[in-house]
Parts: sequence; C-alpha cells; structure tokens
Amino acid sequence: MSVPIAPLAIALGDPAGIGPEIVAAAWDARRTQRLPPFFAIGDLRSIKAVWSGPIVVLGSPGDAAAMFPHALPLVQVDDPGEIVPGTPNLAGARCALDSLEIAVGLCRAGTAAGIVTGPVSKAQLYAIGFTYPGQTEFIAERCGIAAANVAMMLAGPSLRTVPVTIHTPLAQVPAVLTTELIVARCRVVVRGLQRDFGIAAPRLAVAGLNPHAGENGTLGRQEIDIITPAIDILRAEGVDITGPLSADGMFHPAARARYDAAICMYHDQALIPLKTIHFDDGVNITLGLPIVRTSPDHGTAFGLAGRGEASPAAMIAAIRMAGEAALRRAEA
Amino acid sequence: MSVPIAPLAIALGDPAGIGPEIVAAAWDARRTQRLPPFFAIGDLRSIKAVWSGPIVVLGSPGDAAAMFPHALPLVQVDDPGEIVPGTPNLAGARCALDSLEIAVGLCRAGTAAGIVTGPVSKAQLYAIGFTYPGQTEFIAERCGIAAANVAMMLAGPSLRTVPVTIHTPLAQVPAVLTTELIVARCRVVVRGLQRDFGIAAPRLAVAGLNPHAGENGTLGRQEIDIITPAIDILRAEGVDITGPLSADGMFHPAARARYDAAICMYHDQALIPLKTIHFDDGVNITLGLPIVRTSPDHGTAFGLAGRGEASPAAMIAAIRMAGEAALRRAEA
Repeated sequence: MSVPIAPLAIALGDPAGIGPEIVAAAWDARRTQRLPPFFAIGDLRSIKAVWSGPIVVLGSPGDAAAMFPHALPLVQVDDPGEIVPGTPNLAGARCALDSLEIAVGLCRAGTAAGIVTGPVSKAQLYAIGFTYPGQTEFIAERCGIAAANVAMMLAGPSLRTVPVTIHTPLAQVPAVLTTELIVARCRVVVRGLQRDFGIAAPRLAVAGLNPHAGENGTLGRQEIDIITPAIDILRAEGVDITGPLSADGMFHPAARARYDAAICMYHDQALIPLKTIHFDDGVNITLGLPIVRTSPDHGTAFGLAGRGEASPAAMIAAIRMAGEAALRRAEA
Repeated sequence: MSVPIAPLAIALGDPAGIGPEIVAAAWDARRTQRLPPFFAIGDLRSIKAVWSGPIVVLGSPGDAAAMFPHALPLVQVDDPGEIVPGTPNLAGARCALDSLEIAVGLCRAGTAAGIVTGPVSKAQLYAIGFTYPGQTEFIAERCGIAAANVAMMLAGPSLRTVPVTIHTPLAQVPAVLTTELIVARCRVVVRGLQRDFGIAAPRLAVAGLNPHAGENGTLGRQEIDIITPAIDILRAEGVDITGPLSADGMFHPAARARYDAAICMYHDQALIPLKTIHFDDGVNITLGLPIVRTSPDHGTAFGLAGRGEASPAAMIAAIRMAGEAALRRAEA
C-alpha cells in the first residue's frame, strides 16, 4: 500500500455462523496474505467461543490501525444477547444488523476506508423485521442510493459477473428486465471497474436471456426487443460491449479472457459460473456506492460454525479486494 | 472391447461446418485414442476438401469394420450439391439431414451399433422445412419415442447435466415445467445411467428453478409446488435423489462428487456449468432411445471450418462414449 488508508470495518455477520472464525483466521493470516489493517464489529464472545487469539476491544474505533499488528481490534456491539455457535437466534440477527449499521456509519464518517460484511441469515433478519432483499439493498439505502443504481458484482481471480436482476423469482425475470435497467447496471459496472479495479477501458460481455440467446427470435424475443437496444445505447456512449451472447458459451477460459465483466440477466446465470469456478474464493462487491463494500460470496454455514473447518479464503479475498478498491479511491 | 460390436455410424453434420474435419481427425487418432470402429455418412468432397488421408467409399455399409483400420469408411449421400467449407447453404442442410436419416436407419437395422451426429445448422435445416427443435427430437420420432420420454444429457469427465426443459424460451419455462415432466425425465436418466454408463444405483441431484431454490417460497413457489412433489414420487420408487438444491451451489468440485447427474430445470442451468468446465470435451448423449446416440456438444463453427484449427476432442469423446454405451447394451 503506497498511501496510508484508514482500516477496513468488518461486520462479523451472524454471530452463530462462520463469520467470527473466518475473520479471526484472516487476522491470523494478515502478514502472510499482506492484508490491509481492519477491525471487526460484533460480539466479543462470538469470537472467543471459536478462537483463542488476542482480541482488543476498542474504546475508540480510531485506535484500530495502531492495535491491528498485535491483536484483532473489535468494536463491541451493545447487548448482543445469548450467542451459541451453530445455533442462530433472533438476538444474533439483531447483533448482525447492529454490526452492519455501525460499519456503514463508521465508513460514511471516514473512520473506516471501506466495509466488509460477513454472512447473515436472511431468514433470521426477516424474523426481526428486516424488509430488504439483502444487505446490499440495505447499505444502498443507508448511503442514499436507489437500489437500481448499484450493481452486485461477483468477482473471482478469473471471472467477474453481474446479475441485472437479483433476488427475483425466475418467472418474473422477463417482466422485470428492461432496457433502462440493463443500461443503468452496465453504466455502474463500467464506472466501478474503472474506479475500484483500475481498468481504464472496461470490456463488457452481455448474456442473452433465452437458450442460444434466442436464436434470432425463434427461442424468445427479449434479446431483440430489450437487450440489443441496451447494448446499442451503451456502445453509442463509447462502452466496449458485446452481446447478447449465448450464455452457455461465455464462461470457458478462452471466452472469459475476452471481457472484464459478464452482464447476466438473472441470479443463477451470474452465480452458477462464478461459484462453479470460484466457490471458495468468490467475492461480492457492491458497485455504485459512495463507500467501498465487499463480502465473501458464501453463507453463514451454521452447520460448520465452531468446528474450525470453515475456509477463510473468500473472507481474505474480500478484505484484499476492499483494501485495493479503497486505495484506488484514495489515490484517485 | 471384450465383445465385438458393429461399427458406429457417424453422420457428418453440415458439410460446410467442422464435422468432416473432426471426424477425419478422430479417425487419425483411432489407435492412440483406442476408438471403436466407425464409418462416416455424408459427402466425400466435404472430407477431401479439408483432409488428405485415405477414404474408402463403401459399397455396402457392412464392409466398414474390415476397412476401418486402413481408411476412413464413408457411406456417400446421393446428390449432395455444391459444398464449400465455411459457407453453409441449403444443399448442405439436405446432405446433413440425409446423413442423419441414413445413420438412424442403419442403426435401427443393426448395421451400426450406435450413432454419433456431427453439428448441424438449425437455421439451414429450418430453411429446408425441418420442423423439429433439434436432431434429438427428430431421432426420437424416427425411433417411435415421444420427445417427453427421452432425455438430453450433457456429459463430461467430471459432470453430467440434464435439462428438463430444453429449447424453451425462458419466460415459458415456469409454465412448461410440471411434476410429471420432471418425474419422466428422471426415470429416463436413472435407466440411462444404468444401461449406458453402468452405474447400478444412480444418484440424482435436482436443481431449484428460482434463486436460492426459492428460499422456502419467498423467491418463488415452483420448488414447493412442482419440484419437491416430483422428488417425493421418485424417492418413493427407490431413486437416490436430493433437492431441490440452490443451483449456484451444485457445480463446484466437492458438490459434483455427490451425484451422478444434475437434473436442471432449463437449458442454460444445465449448459452453463457443463460448458464452463467441459467446453472442449462435452458430449451430448440422448437417453431413452432404443439406439445409442451421442454428439459432440458444440456447433458447426463455420468460421473455423477448413482451417485445420478445430479441436476433435469432443468428437473423440462422443465416439468413445457411444462405443462404451453400445458395448454395455450388447453385454446386457
């Protein structure tokens, strides 16, 4: 890191999941992995239950950078209730949500250079009245950005994908998909690849919706009526963009070398190839926010929690990616 | 091969595509790859234009096995018209369709142990009045089998997938998908894995339709209303079956080790992971037919034809798989 940046804030996610142990494992690997400084936000007991390393509970978040070399710095969440690794409950959901709120607040205030969010249980969050489709939409609202103007990118070492529609039932995807939505997402992706990844002239590849990208209209018309007009608009703006492509031919190694991000029409079209290739080290990065935000692309894995078997690879990759993006923004 | 089987019949596909050259390349590799005997069906000139090896035009298809060690045996299609590598035309489509008809006929008659079909251009076939969604449905009808009672399996060395709906526009998939269709496809797959792959007790993994397999109904109800009832019926029949699973978590190496075939709800859900992993050596095998039928899982690649750059890997894999399936059927 050539210029100093503030430490990253890591919301531990559900305290009964694998979040606490993979963040602790990432701290253990801070030197070998050359990770930027970070501090955790959550419940002290949730880490102590699964890890015996040094923890320092911060009086002020501003002390995190100085403490980081010696102990895992922690911002303690008030009154987190009873926590049992592997056993989710409503108290844990409240703790996860409070951690997220604090992380966003500290980042908006400049005390953190970016946020990394641990895995949460949506079922538990819904049970305490959380009404957002996911953490991404919640963070966007806290930042005053409409959800349509952010993009969820899944990024691994050899592939980046962006779903245009995300948590939409498959039957509703064709109705939700519009030229305007595709254009909006692609603009966010272009700007995000420039700002957070340092790619000056990003190349986008756009998937079709239907088998064989509709085969000239015989297997569906959305490519002709919705997707191609979006590509035309973006190309007229100077974007390096190809498509609509047959989705099944976009993700083998030679195809992946031709673009910087694949724009996909629905959740599984983006997530299947990403997780097939990068199941253990895929990162979810939210583009279009005023703050840097990444997350490991996996769930709470309650069944694994507390057993010391969870891989920290995706958390480490998420921390590294957030640090690189924060540095690029600081240098811009 | 422990018992002698008849040679395989290979329909060359569109003569202007890469079919002729990859079949010739497979013949060149017959010894190193230990391929079973086969003969080609198509136009002599389409091979001569792209390959300088020995070809023997068969007076009787029954002579193929004796000729195979010394030259590529060919059943010549009558009056194939003008053929130019890389330039598809209607004459080529007629030649491809005639080749397919002859291959099916020779296999039904027992002169061939199975058929391998080269890539065709659907656009060209439609232009000469072909009304089937693809070669698979055509072959099924010629064998007197309803299309609902066959299954298209995509098979590579580390993954087999089966789409329940195939060439269906995405918007129509939820309406086409029924419990009965899923059950029918799975029964065909179980029988096919036993008969053609020698797997005594096949393990099936069934994908959900919606993101996160519907997340208990919050992201779509087809998992609850359609897919789970199908799984219950099959399990009651003794099938080793799991699901509905979140499709994005089914295809990384550890997940793939848990099943023999992934049952997918639509085309790209099955084809994206298969081609991401096995773009160069994926085989399309039709299960549920009275005859063995395989095909390389790629297209005509008109842009590559005649340049000597097309990989024969998938054709070689298709020939090997057809030979193994034919042998298992002969020994059963």
